[in-house]
Amino acid sequence: MRTALCDRFGIDYPIFVFTPSEKVAAAVSRAGGLGVLGCVRFNDAADLDAVLDWMDANTDGRPYGVDVVMPAKIPTEGSAVDIDKLIPAGHRDFVAKTLADLGVPPLPADEDRNDGVLGWLHSVARSHVEVALRHPIKLIANALGSPPIDVIEQVHAAGVPVAALAGSAKHALAHVRNGVDIIVAQGHEAGGHTGEIGSMVLWPEIVDAVGDTPVLAAGGIGTGRQVAAGLALGAQGVWMGSAFLTAAEYDLGVRTAAGTTVVQEAMLAATSADTVRRRIYTGKPARLLKSRWTDAWDADNAPEPLPMPLQNILVSEAHQRMSEGTDPTAVAMPVGQIVGRMNEIRPVAEIMAELVAGFEQATRRLDDIRDR
Amino acid sequence: MRTALCDRFGIDYPIFVFTPSEKVAAAVSRAGGLGVLGCVRFNDAADLDAVLDWMDANTDGRPYGVDVVMPAKIPTEGSAVDIDKLIPAGHRDFVAKTLADLGVPPLPADEDRNDGVLGWLHSVARSHVEVALRHPIKLIANALGSPPIDVIEQVHAAGVPVAALAGSAKHALAHVRNGVDIIVAQGHEAGGHTGEIGSMVLWPEIVDAVGDTPVLAAGGIGTGRQVAAGLALGAQGVWMGSAFLTAAEYDLGVRTAAGTTVVQEAMLAATSADTVRRRIYTGKPARLLKSRWTDAWDADNAPEPLPMPLQNILVSEAHQRMSEGTDPTAVAMPVGQIVGRMNEIRPVAEIMAELVAGFEQATRRLDDIRDR
Repeated sequence: MRTALCDRFGIDYPIFVFTPSEKVAAAVSRAGGLGVLGCVRFNDAADLDAVLDWMDANTDGRPYGVDVVMPAKIPTEGSAVDIDKLIPAGHRDFVAKTLADLGVPPLPADEDRNDGVLGWLHSVARSHVEVALRHPIKLIANALGSPPIDVIEQVHAAGVPVAALAGSAKHALAHVRNGVDIIVAQGHEAGGHTGEIGSMVLWPEIVDAVGDTPVLAAGGIGTGRQVAAGLALGAQGVWMGSAFLTAAEYDLGVRTAAGTTVVQEAMLAATSADTVRRRIYTGKPARLLKSRWTDAWDADNAPEPLPMPLQNILVSEAHQRMSEGTDPTAVAMPVGQIVGRMNEIRPVAEIMAELVAGFEQATRRLDDIRDR
Repeated sequence: MRTALCDRFGIDYPIFVFTPSEKVAAAVSRAGGLGVLGCVRFNDAADLDAVLDWMDANTDGRPYGVDVVMPAKIPTEGSAVDIDKLIPAGHRDFVAKTLADLGVPPLPADEDRNDGVLGWLHSVARSHVEVALRHPIKLIANALGSPPIDVIEQVHAAGVPVAALAGSAKHALAHVRNGVDIIVAQGHEAGGHTGEIGSMVLWPEIVDAVGDTPVLAAGGIGTGRQVAAGLALGAQGVWMGSAFLTAAEYDLGVRTAAGTTVVQEAMLAATSADTVRRRIYTGKPARLLKSRWTDAWDADNAPEPLPMPLQNILVSEAHQRMSEGTDPTAVAMPVGQIVGRMNEIRPVAEIMAELVAGFEQATRRLDDIRDR
């Protein structure tokens, strides 16, 4: 399974995997794909630097990339304390009451409170870019579309291509005009920030719109058959995320007695119908696991979610508390509809091997249908 | 492009096309697919009988099918007059005011008012089945899932297989248990009644769930590449609808000076982002072209849509008035996200030829990627 992107990046398979876990990212790169480490969880760039040092030591010289979250329009800026003041008391009360109603335990008194994902802030995302460019990264992707032009130029000056997510052909064309090198066409099925156009319609539409710019198919891919579908529709590769949240190497979060996190337990149990697309995680529409937490925000008494970055700061301690709880029905987690197929913990190498074998099998089936 | 369904139905290509137009259905069958005539517009079964006589005379002996709309649960039943009384005055007032606000002209005084789609009624749908079985039909499909068991038995007794739409693996399995022979796996992208799970995730999930029962991929298919994607994901054929609403043979509705209907003009202009999924057409969630009419129902002052079959009866005269108007921004039309690719009026044979050639091209591309 080789496309021009394999030659360009020096990878065996055109499989790009976004993951917040450096263990998973490194394993993907070692297995012949391109692991892309999500930076948004690093409020302190020094922590990212240390993790990238680890990546450098554990990828056997195979290429990897990073993913930043940089809104095109510069949102509210400032320190965590400044931003905190912009959150209405009614919203805080709703969160506190909801957690009490759901029976979510408080954090231990001696545990640090999560400040919320400051990676949405331009200043923090810029620090991620600075740090990443000190490492031998092969790709910087931006989860919120085109980064600012000066950032694209900075990354290009370092010889690194830029990828950007797009949920419509119009946005994809704007990215190309801004200098973006690779478009991640993110269909409605996808986890996290996603638009309304389904992968089946979106992927070929973006492929046709952007011409020579390579497109990665994202949203709904978890098996080799789905890789084949993405490449049949004209993509040069695939971009995956959700399917690796239940990888054996994934080690973020607090383990329960079962050896998994409470969020993983929730994902293993979920069907493809158990997601919702809501603004409650970041302030922009993102697909999340349906849970009693998302149900609470759907109730008549729930407030409207705040804009980015305030909403995530509002709910960050709640996320932390639910993640450290023991109730898989009360969690907050971005994941795509492919969650219905995430039914066991598997090593990255096994997931990758199925993608390659499943692709092969699907294309042989198509040959039979064509040549019969 | 041949699968087992081609042998079973005596068709050249596993392409099933649902259409309300007998001209389009016959042209599809003549071109080697299976034309499936939608019956829901025939309030009087004698009209359907006459149209099927026409089909028999114009399909060159090629197979065709029909599509009925039979809810699994028997909804409100009765004559048009009885049902009319169940519609609240406030809803009628909203419709009248909206049409006035949109500047939609009244119907000519001497024109018959559309009674609303009584095909949603069990009694009417049963009359469609009775009439259809008097013709050499090769398939009865039900747009709302399993028909009642006695209807399935009646159709099987005539040697005709039954297909049913499903938006989840759970529903598909229930259909199979009820005796349904073919599952139409209808992804979120689709026009008309549709669920929340995107085609990329839904199709393989239903394929895996139902085992030997053949699955038709529906929702988002308009080109041969998308046919290839559907078959790569394990479907034995595809089920299309929207893409044939702009077929040259389509002759329903009032023509404007341009030779098209006002609804076709709206579809030709729309992008894939210009649809919404709402309950305002039938009472159940259905994907429609976004228009000033759908916007009006999204406004704060709009009432909640009524349940099926009341909602369609409420809006049927409005639909008729808008369809006979001249303003493509004020229309009501079920259509899928593939509408973004419906940019010209093309003969059925041309659409079919592209599906076959595009499939071939996509599979050759996959071979190259696999064998490189």
